[in-house]
Formats: sequence, structure tokens, C-alpha cells
Amino acid sequence: MIILGLDPSLSCTGWGVIRTEGSRLKHIANGQIKTDAKAPMAVRLAMLQSGVAGVIADHQPDRAAAEEVFVNKNPQSTLKLAQARGVVLAACGASELTVHEHAARLVKKAVVGTGAAEKSQVQAMLKILLPGAKLAGADAADALAVAIADAHLG
Amino acid sequence: MIILGLDPSLSCTGWGVIRTEGSRLKHIANGQIKTDAKAPMAVRLAMLQSGVAGVIADHQPDRAAAEEVFVNKNPQSTLKLAQARGVVLAACGASELTVHEHAARLVKKAVVGTGAAEKSQVQAMLKILLPGAKLAGADAADALAVAIADAHLG
Repeated sequence: MIILGLDPSLSCTGWGVIRTEGSRLKHIANGQIKTDAKAPMAVRLAMLQSGVAGVIADHQPDRAAAEEVFVNKNPQSTLKLAQARGVVLAACGASELTVHEHAARLVKKAVVGTGAAEKSQVQAMLKILLPGAKLAGADAADALAVAIADAHLG
Repeated sequence: MIILGLDPSLSCTGWGVIRTEGSRLKHIANGQIKTDAKAPMAVRLAMLQSGVAGVIADHQPDRAAAEEVFVNKNPQSTLKLAQARGVVLAACGASELTVHEHAARLVKKAVVGTGAAEKSQVQAMLKILLPGAKLAGADAADALAVAIADAHLG
């Protein structure tokens, strides 16, 4: 089973692909899709769409996973995040990928053992759970964490 | 100049295409893209994406227009709307269409003459401004209104 974890955002969407082999996990790839902050919104969203579609085409995942949305108190931030998230989900839907959603707390719990884990603890555990994986950045790390959680939570 | 007006929403996205000929407006087409409420979110968003891409391919607009987002007090509603909106914008961006955004108040003012117009007044004016246009529904009417406003506001 190949699982694609996604951490959507307009400026930088993280992604991570893992393979489950029985109870073992193997890192396949991770990366970040950045969009040009100077480009119009529609163009940035189209860049994001084609970036995610490219990752799906390259790695042919069996399913995808993302954290449940965090609804920001700032409506403009929520709007930007949700627009980006919509595009990422649509790219999955277009490839008939099921997208599981997991609460952030459950992702941390699945990776570190506690829902109150710090980001640094999550990244330290990623190095143990996926030996040899070079993290493209913090967003790619979050995406791998979602993929690992999905492997456990289904 | 061919203008595509869009009224994005997850359940039913309205669209309307008009042509400007000097100071005259001509109705080309309008319609609504509905998504299956029982389908998973990613699939619904992918349906929406391909629906908008199809309208763009059919009518080859020169530019697009949508109302500025109304940020709902209900965060879940804002989230759904924004996810759908992101997909609609991405479909425009993928076709290199510029998307103008206009405040709802300015759209009503451009169509009816007052920013406080009722929906029924907007629809009545549409019949005058675009004679012969058969409206596919309320969302298509809203989309045509945005297109007309964009013809005036640029």
C-alpha cells in the first residue's frame, strides 16, 4: 500500500509518500510545492493543482491523507488555506484517490505517542520511523507524519 | 470580449458567459454545475473542476469574474465555500484566465443601480439587459450578474 500524505497551503504544500509492508513503513519520497507569491491567486492555485497532480502521477499512491482543517481565527487566512486545500483535494479526486482526514492531535499521537507533541518531537520520530529519509522541509515533514498516521489509523 | 462570470459553491456553481460588443452586451450561455452530495469531498471538488474546465473549453472566454468572498460566520460553511472557490479559480488559472473579483455590492450596483438591490431585482434586470437569456437557476443568474458587472467595472 502506497500512501500520500498532504499538508496543503497556498504558499507551500508539503507532500510525503510512504509504502507499508506489513507492519513496516518505508519512505519513498517527500517534497514541497511552492507557489509564486507575486502571481495572481488563480495562477497560484493552478500551479498547486498541477504540482499535486504531478506527485500523484509520479508515485501512483493507493490512497491519500491530510489533517483535518484547522479553522483559523483570521477569516482571510482560513480562506486562503481552504482554497488551497480544495485544489489539493480536487487533484486527488481527479485521480480517484480516497482522502482520509485525521485530526492533528491523532496524527501526533500516532507518530510520537502523545497528541500534545511538539513539531521537533514529530520530526525526530520521523527520522527513526523512516530511516534515511531526507526531509525537504517542515511542511514535507508534516505531510509524512500524516501518511504515517494514516498507515496506523487507516 | 467574452466574459465568464462565476458564482462558486460546492453544491451548485453558477456560470454565465456574455460578449461585449462596444457598449452592448450579448448573452452567450449560462448554466449550473451541481455535484453529488453523497460523493466524497475530493470527488465533488474534482467534478467541479472538470465542469468549469469544460465551460472554459466550450466558450473560450477572454477573462473571468467572481464576487469577492463572503466570509460566513459559520467556519464550516466558509471552509466548504472556499474549497470550492479554490477549485474554480484553479480551473481559470490553468487556462491562463485572469479572474477579476468584485464586491457583491458593486455587482448589484452595476446591474440594478443600487448596491442594496434584492435578488429578484437583479434577475428582472438580467432579462432586460440580456434579452432572450433563459436562466438555468438562481446561481446562474448571479454568475451572469457578475459577468455584466465585470463588463462595466473591468
